[in-house]
Amino acid sequence: MINPVALITAKRDGQALAADAIKALIDAYTRGDVPDYQMSAFLMASFLRGMNDAETAALTDAMLYSGSVLDLSATPGIKVDKHSTGGVGDKVSLILAPVVAACGVPVPMISGRGLGHSGGTLDKLEAIPGLRTDLSTAQYKAQLDRIGLVMIGQTREIAPADRKLYALRDVTATVEFIPFIAASIMSKKLAEGIDALVLDVKAGRGAFMKTQDDARRLAETLVAIGERFDKPTVAWMTTMDVPLGRAVGNWPEVEESIRCLQGADVPDLMEVTLALAGEMLHLGGVAVSPEAGRHQAQDAIASGQAFDKFVELVEAQHGDPTVLTDPASRTGAAPAAEVHAPDHVRGYVADLDALALGYTAVALGAGRRTKEDRVDPTAGIVLHKKPGDAVAPGEVLAHLYTKKTDEIASFSASVQAAYRFSDTQAPPARMLLDRYTKDGWMKA
Amino acid sequence: MINPVALITAKRDGQALAADAIKALIDAYTRGDVPDYQMSAFLMASFLRGMNDAETAALTDAMLYSGSVLDLSATPGIKVDKHSTGGVGDKVSLILAPVVAACGVPVPMISGRGLGHSGGTLDKLEAIPGLRTDLSTAQYKAQLDRIGLVMIGQTREIAPADRKLYALRDVTATVEFIPFIAASIMSKKLAEGIDALVLDVKAGRGAFMKTQDDARRLAETLVAIGERFDKPTVAWMTTMDVPLGRAVGNWPEVEESIRCLQGADVPDLMEVTLALAGEMLHLGGVAVSPEAGRHQAQDAIASGQAFDKFVELVEAQHGDPTVLTDPASRTGAAPAAEVHAPDHVRGYVADLDALALGYTAVALGAGRRTKEDRVDPTAGIVLHKKPGDAVAPGEVLAHLYTKKTDEIASFSASVQAAYRFSDTQAPPARMLLDRYTKDGWMKA
Repeated sequence: MINPVALITAKRDGQALAADAIKALIDAYTRGDVPDYQMSAFLMASFLRGMNDAETAALTDAMLYSGSVLDLSATPGIKVDKHSTGGVGDKVSLILAPVVAACGVPVPMISGRGLGHSGGTLDKLEAIPGLRTDLSTAQYKAQLDRIGLVMIGQTREIAPADRKLYALRDVTATVEFIPFIAASIMSKKLAEGIDALVLDVKAGRGAFMKTQDDARRLAETLVAIGERFDKPTVAWMTTMDVPLGRAVGNWPEVEESIRCLQGADVPDLMEVTLALAGEMLHLGGVAVSPEAGRHQAQDAIASGQAFDKFVELVEAQHGDPTVLTDPASRTGAAPAAEVHAPDHVRGYVADLDALALGYTAVALGAGRRTKEDRVDPTAGIVLHKKPGDAVAPGEVLAHLYTKKTDEIASFSASVQAAYRFSDTQAPPARMLLDRYTKDGWMKA
Repeated sequence: MINPVALITAKRDGQALAADAIKALIDAYTRGDVPDYQMSAFLMASFLRGMNDAETAALTDAMLYSGSVLDLSATPGIKVDKHSTGGVGDKVSLILAPVVAACGVPVPMISGRGLGHSGGTLDKLEAIPGLRTDLSTAQYKAQLDRIGLVMIGQTREIAPADRKLYALRDVTATVEFIPFIAASIMSKKLAEGIDALVLDVKAGRGAFMKTQDDARRLAETLVAIGERFDKPTVAWMTTMDVPLGRAVGNWPEVEESIRCLQGADVPDLMEVTLALAGEMLHLGGVAVSPEAGRHQAQDAIASGQAFDKFVELVEAQHGDPTVLTDPASRTGAAPAAEVHAPDHVRGYVADLDALALGYTAVALGAGRRTKEDRVDPTAGIVLHKKPGDAVAPGEVLAHLYTKKTDEIASFSASVQAAYRFSDTQAPPARMLLDRYTKDGWMKA
């Protein structure tokens, strides 16, 4: 029998716990044999005393095997997924997954919903009328087998310990701790049945990790876990100070993704997407290098195969494909408001605060303030001006889409306040920062 | 409304909390509006980040006013109590309280039960047949008024927050934290309605505080709280490596106390008892100095007034006074076993491990392993040899009293193993270490 008080005491006193002790504690907690009040003391002791790589791996292992681990060995090929730590306007998965699948690497992707200021892939997918993300395990495997691409939500069987722990962390001030964050991410990703993983660890004011130091430590921890589980793992640290692309909100982001899959160049968005695609195709064994993979990804877009794969995905998951070829039919009417540049402004957009914009998008209806909130799939912001763009007095900065028209003045003011202007044109931001693998850090 | 996550976060990040925030948190917890799992995260964050004197005072205040604070202003005189942090063979209260009351200082004492290796005054008192410690508040006040002495257990109305918090600390590895220990002690003592307090903070292997450094910090914290509440408070740090006196166990300790009240000199026990009595009489305004108080206490014993006061107490609380004048009638038969010195031993007892002996006494039936255990009032150990005593091979070291006669060989071996012998006679241990008041530390 485990003695929870002894384990809490050991962690409180700064000791590293053995893997089997962590496993026993998490198992007992998941079963309900260890109460929340003991687990929260353990979480806080861990938060303040730290957890080493071996403990973090043991925690991941315990969380992973608290539920089902999918077996995709029947599907040929090296299955590769991507995980992003989340940002504002981050619709990379919607473009990346069909691109990579179109190039012949199977992509089994289990995603989450938006919470806080950042969106979630599931909410974006569900902005496509009819599209279902609640497939059964059998349907998930069958679809991956048939079209090489499946995008669903976390099922009840996957990492139940993570769900229970996350809910407890949320109310006990133990969320922002890298070993817990890493174990939570990796236990869910490893449960998907993947062979390799690419990570987009975002750093900046619009990201979960505000500093590059924190993002760096998280990337190192994630890669260390992946490699301990024999899943080759590559992490890119990317910038998240300004929204990625020009759309923020579920349907607006789907629309922008469709345009990118049809060949539009949204520079910051595509720079990140193609770099991650190159890594996935390399890990998936169809490209000789990440750089070669990047070119294959571009070719898949140019040939139309990537867009076709996306249509295939939408149809397979019961979505209405007509909105993909006629996106305007979904948005319907004109925007609820135009946000204009102030009269005194002339010159360039110098900066745009992703965090402020993320919260405004939530307020418009694109996200949730509590888990119970329902999202408005068409709500969001489309940016007509981003940093580097020239701007004249009164010019349109952004379009707002929302059903909350009585609050529109306040929304417009928030969006305008997120902009900074300057007389001189700043150079484009460096999107790709550093790259981390088991061999260490490499500059972009 | 309070935001528990914000308070946990602030403490987690090392901030000092405002008094009203601590008060609101404890109040909400006591009402049940803050769940155990949030409080345990707060307890662990406090344990690891620390609490300053103002926070500790605020915590004490919140715990104190979570229940009733008794008003003893109708009883004339300066009411003084003593609290000991507990040790093995610590029957000081049984002697001290009647001595001080006999000298004219009212003593309202609320005590606890034994848990762990150390005994509790309530269990000792209840070893006197018929004696009741569950008086109502009205009875408590009336008895103090009438005979100047009352000794009861904690009522439901006193510091309910402490009871709830203590139960949580016990299962979340957050017991051994000086601000919590101090707040727990002082909230209960201040609720008694006292005007001044004397503390016996024990240091050593048989004490809760194993080191003098920890005992010193606890004494400082306790005195700081007392003075913040305008209750003059004096702390003595005393040694607790060897059992105090020669009896360990409830009735054996009552019997030893009776003998001391009748004038027997048990040097270590009476040195501590008289020093504390001197302080109480000085704080109570009947002695010009602690030293003068010490002499008054000795006189009260010599005159028989102290023993008479004890008899009065026992009668007032429905105890059978005949066992006081004929203690042997209570113990009944001979001891269950004699423990003998090993054959190779000649010389002196060099050391005797109070902690080991305390646990053996619990095993004999004198204490509890869980809160639900019932104590055997007559179980215990009477030491015939203590450090400094000459010893010959095979001589009796101790008598054991227990109903668990089938385990007697193991008990005897444990007691024998607690002894160390030497060829030379060690000097008696220094019982009184340092004295602390608001004016600072003073050597004994």
